[in-house]
Amino acid sequence: MTNLDQKAIKTLATLSLEEINAAKSGHPGIALGAAPIMYTLYSKVLKVNPLDPHWINRDRFVLAAGHGSSLLYASLHLAGFDITCEDLKQFRKLKSKTPGHPEIEATLGVDATSGPLGQGIPEAVGMAIAESHLRNKYNKDDVKIIDHYTYVLCGDGDLQEGVTQEAISLAGHLQLSKLIILYDSNNIQLDGKVSMTNTENVKEKYQAMGFSYYLVEDGRDCEEILKAIKKAQKSLSPSLIEIKTKIGAGSCWEDSNKSHGNPLPEEEVHRFRQELGGEAFSVSSDVYDLYKKHQENNLKIYNKEKENEKKYQHEYHNDYDIFYKQIYGDFNIDIHKDLPNYLVGEKKATRASSGEILTLLSQKDPRFIGGSADLASSSKVKGIDGDFSKDNRLGRNLVYGVREHAMAAISNGLALHGGFKPFCGGFFVFCDYMKPAIRLSSLMKLPVLYIFSHDSIAVGEDGPTHQPIEQLTMLRSVPNLNVIRPCDSIEVKEAYDVYLHSPNNPTVLVLTRQDVENIRKEEKENQLAKGGYIIKKETLKLQKILIASGSEVKLAIDVACALEKESIGTRVVSMPSFYLFDKQNQEYKEDVLPKEIAKVAIEASDATHYYKYLSTDDKLINMHTFGESAHASVTMDYFGFTVEKILKEIK
Amino acid sequence: MTNLDQKAIKTLATLSLEEINAAKSGHPGIALGAAPIMYTLYSKVLKVNPLDPHWINRDRFVLAAGHGSSLLYASLHLAGFDITCEDLKQFRKLKSKTPGHPEIEATLGVDATSGPLGQGIPEAVGMAIAESHLRNKYNKDDVKIIDHYTYVLCGDGDLQEGVTQEAISLAGHLQLSKLIILYDSNNIQLDGKVSMTNTENVKEKYQAMGFSYYLVEDGRDCEEILKAIKKAQKSLSPSLIEIKTKIGAGSCWEDSNKSHGNPLPEEEVHRFRQELGGEAFSVSSDVYDLYKKHQENNLKIYNKEKENEKKYQHEYHNDYDIFYKQIYGDFNIDIHKDLPNYLVGEKKATRASSGEILTLLSQKDPRFIGGSADLASSSKVKGIDGDFSKDNRLGRNLVYGVREHAMAAISNGLALHGGFKPFCGGFFVFCDYMKPAIRLSSLMKLPVLYIFSHDSIAVGEDGPTHQPIEQLTMLRSVPNLNVIRPCDSIEVKEAYDVYLHSPNNPTVLVLTRQDVENIRKEEKENQLAKGGYIIKKETLKLQKILIASGSEVKLAIDVACALEKESIGTRVVSMPSFYLFDKQNQEYKEDVLPKEIAKVAIEASDATHYYKYLSTDDKLINMHTFGESAHASVTMDYFGFTVEKILKEIK
Repeated sequence: MTNLDQKAIKTLATLSLEEINAAKSGHPGIALGAAPIMYTLYSKVLKVNPLDPHWINRDRFVLAAGHGSSLLYASLHLAGFDITCEDLKQFRKLKSKTPGHPEIEATLGVDATSGPLGQGIPEAVGMAIAESHLRNKYNKDDVKIIDHYTYVLCGDGDLQEGVTQEAISLAGHLQLSKLIILYDSNNIQLDGKVSMTNTENVKEKYQAMGFSYYLVEDGRDCEEILKAIKKAQKSLSPSLIEIKTKIGAGSCWEDSNKSHGNPLPEEEVHRFRQELGGEAFSVSSDVYDLYKKHQENNLKIYNKEKENEKKYQHEYHNDYDIFYKQIYGDFNIDIHKDLPNYLVGEKKATRASSGEILTLLSQKDPRFIGGSADLASSSKVKGIDGDFSKDNRLGRNLVYGVREHAMAAISNGLALHGGFKPFCGGFFVFCDYMKPAIRLSSLMKLPVLYIFSHDSIAVGEDGPTHQPIEQLTMLRSVPNLNVIRPCDSIEVKEAYDVYLHSPNNPTVLVLTRQDVENIRKEEKENQLAKGGYIIKKETLKLQKILIASGSEVKLAIDVACALEKESIGTRVVSMPSFYLFDKQNQEYKEDVLPKEIAKVAIEASDATHYYKYLSTDDKLINMHTFGESAHASVTMDYFGFTVEKILKEIK
Repeated sequence: MTNLDQKAIKTLATLSLEEINAAKSGHPGIALGAAPIMYTLYSKVLKVNPLDPHWINRDRFVLAAGHGSSLLYASLHLAGFDITCEDLKQFRKLKSKTPGHPEIEATLGVDATSGPLGQGIPEAVGMAIAESHLRNKYNKDDVKIIDHYTYVLCGDGDLQEGVTQEAISLAGHLQLSKLIILYDSNNIQLDGKVSMTNTENVKEKYQAMGFSYYLVEDGRDCEEILKAIKKAQKSLSPSLIEIKTKIGAGSCWEDSNKSHGNPLPEEEVHRFRQELGGEAFSVSSDVYDLYKKHQENNLKIYNKEKENEKKYQHEYHNDYDIFYKQIYGDFNIDIHKDLPNYLVGEKKATRASSGEILTLLSQKDPRFIGGSADLASSSKVKGIDGDFSKDNRLGRNLVYGVREHAMAAISNGLALHGGFKPFCGGFFVFCDYMKPAIRLSSLMKLPVLYIFSHDSIAVGEDGPTHQPIEQLTMLRSVPNLNVIRPCDSIEVKEAYDVYLHSPNNPTVLVLTRQDVENIRKEEKENQLAKGGYIIKKETLKLQKILIASGSEVKLAIDVACALEKESIGTRVVSMPSFYLFDKQNQEYKEDVLPKEIAKVAIEASDATHYYKYLSTDDKLINMHTFGESAHASVTMDYFGFTVEKILKEIK
């Protein structure tokens, strides 16, 4: 390790400390402990181009330990990304490029929004799957257009998270050789020593899961770190590099959990700066030059690869055309031409029509990749071209095993990588397991498609553990998340259409296990896209409006017919998506749901969101309790979801 | 293995199949594959007493693979629990003793509601912690009153779940020697072969996490199973016994995932019965006798232990008194005498007063045990008497590490065991990670206390990944779950009072990071217990009602004062708990929130539940988006939560 290496590492650490102290908030412990790792990555390893931060063939880097954001921002600054020293001074301030935890929308060069522990490693696994698939799909013997590594820096906390363990197990199974996890192993977590809660044999555990394991005993030594990375790059397995560091290294709080989340005393930061020299937030030119050298080399690689791409385009025109569309373009699917027609009156479970449509879309659009958490046969959420495996990198069905949470987080990673429209799913009730990752899909505005079947107490015999009650409310309350519960196969088709035109938000489809009848003719205009619409117009003077979603729409129509027989003019509004309906203008909403008309909402779920469109005199027929184990028809009757019981309830 | 053993196993399997086929729904694969394991447990191993199914010193058994319910019911029947053959015929029927998945409320002898994969092992870990604590606390050299094993039967899917991996890692660390996991290893999961998604080295992985590993190569051989269990009983570590079985063993679907969740063809079930002899749902007397023999032995043990207990009561009167209260009784805490007085106008973060109160309660009530997922220092959720560890079984602080999900599931296990009031917590936003276990707390009506701090965008600099938005709505929509967001330390105290008197539901406290001012005097009558109440009465003719919770109550009061200055009579309603308010009678609700008065609800969250009490002309001032990274005062202002901005919004 040269003196300049040491100076650069100190620069990185000091900038981080200065950011934190300017913000009076942040995490100096990791900034000091992991500075040599981040230095090694950004000055010697990562293939990136600050001038083209979204370069598809760049190395990916996920800071799983998102609380090390100050260190990442300082690294990006030194590496020449669009972050100035002024930006560093704005650390953790409103609308800055340097928010509290890394955010993809705020900062060029950030590959994943991070902070919630456990999410980063599965996201990196998703990126590595993406790379592996594209590499094996497009590269030719004579010209390669995709070939990069995925690095992730994590701490002790990350590895304790179950979602990480799920992802590790799967990554080992899949032998994702270009995934390299850098484990900042400092024996300290927020509440104290790691040994208070974790005494695993790290090496043996990760080897047992199919990982290569490397140990760097002195995490201050960037040469040792580099050596280990080079070994990992050559490994045929994914790698975990355990790097022994000291939290808060070199500070008065070295080796203490105190340094995790509290700014160091001012005088400590001054001491760091004094030892380094220069003004606060300044960087000496030799340090800039060092980073620049790496970037100059990167630029050569970049230019060469762009030439490669041209050569590829020239020699493999057809493949390039698909590649281009997969990465940058679109496949322009027309649901009316490309998908089956569903006829009024036909009966089909919406999980079944969803499965059919998903397969057709996957055939027409190579970006579709995904699978289920061991429920593909039940939920009809399955990719095509066989199972993705170490022997078949072209498979687009991901066999996640019973690892729901990692499945969702890996889907985020696939979407973050670019070139994919990832989907995943299972039983609706178990979306609970995926909530933290679904939240991140929504926060990052990723076009992940979640497909859930078995959407209500109509699940039947499996009973209350398997019958969703509160899940619709849970997901409807997540910002940016379009939750769609279609009432029949026609609405399923329209829902997919909406998804195809939603590049900037995740979509959730909530589907039935049981058959439902197709209610209306398909129309040119996508009715579902309005979120809520009149699916059955009143035939008499409007006196009542019934609002429902999913399988309860047909029920509402039957109730409406019965009411109309009693000369009560009744309209039925299908409300597949509050997300979309909320976006309509006031006039449309008032047209569909005129204020003065009495309303009854019907949904076999908690259904709290309907209250937004109900007055205090209106009625919500919903679920107040958990479900029951019995045949679907029995549970529906027991909880009052029959024409007779609803009519009685209304009167 | 004797012929009678084989006959008994066949009886168990056949009864299971008959249950499933009577229901036309269920899971024959595990019923056939794991019958020898269940037979061994219930006829040779488990220390239970069907006449006293809640016996505190019984062995616990968790069927993590809850879809094996038919097998459990048949086992309980044979072992003499209160399940008749008629009950078996009612398998999966409404309100039967034999619902689709095991439910503690439905069936005596069921130690945990199960079905959602991953939850069972952490629950068993919680039970083993409970046993270990009580054993070390109460047992004397000459007389022992607590000493039992915790067994859990799981499948491949369970072990793939992250929450299980978290719990395994912690159980290994804690060296819970009386925890024995029976792993029904049949190489098949719902979608096909396990090897499609999992190729870990099981032995090495679990040994690396501190488990003893035993292999039973022929899972049909109950003697081999018994031998392994005897070894595991003597181990100083927790044990994983991998038992190689065949899913659907002996049927036409042996070794096929088809047998997982589909009833076998009728003729197959007939064949099983024919080979066994007798009518459907019948059991030959020699098989009953075999089980009876084990239960007679158990009864001797039971009677001896009850004598022990008497001896203990006699010789260690004081200890017994506490033991009795811990297991069967109460400690009758009076919050007015036993907890600090909080004064009007004083400022304190509600996480801080919660922490004080929790410590005091823990001192007065030995049932309090719990901890945090590496956020004890921040969220003030910490148990007393030191950290529970392999060297200190008396510690009541559980150092969960960053394993939120297992923390919640382990808390369920502690509550299921009996003798404990488990609590756990962390940052509110990360309750997402715990949702599946919180749901099970609610479904099982367990008195688990969840304590979450950092409850809104007022978290500040940590930014949107750490700022809860939709979490209140998420939890408020779970049946049986009392979500309380107190506005000050007085309400915190009242919330704990409510919790102390809530033996049959979990409670969630949602607390501030920042200081909040105590608003009103403490009263004899618990105001918070009504869920919503008038915290500031209008001083002029009532024209407007502001409704709020948590830190927004003070804001609402300031707004109300400003409105009253403009002669608009304004009332403020504090709404800490919709769960409790919804339970009040119509008259009270109408008193607090008269229908005809205009209302504005204010909450820095998604806050959808307020709509229930708002008319379509009323206003909800809430969060529609994710938060922002900035100082708390800046985020609150940016999103409109200031007196000025709310006044403007109202007008």
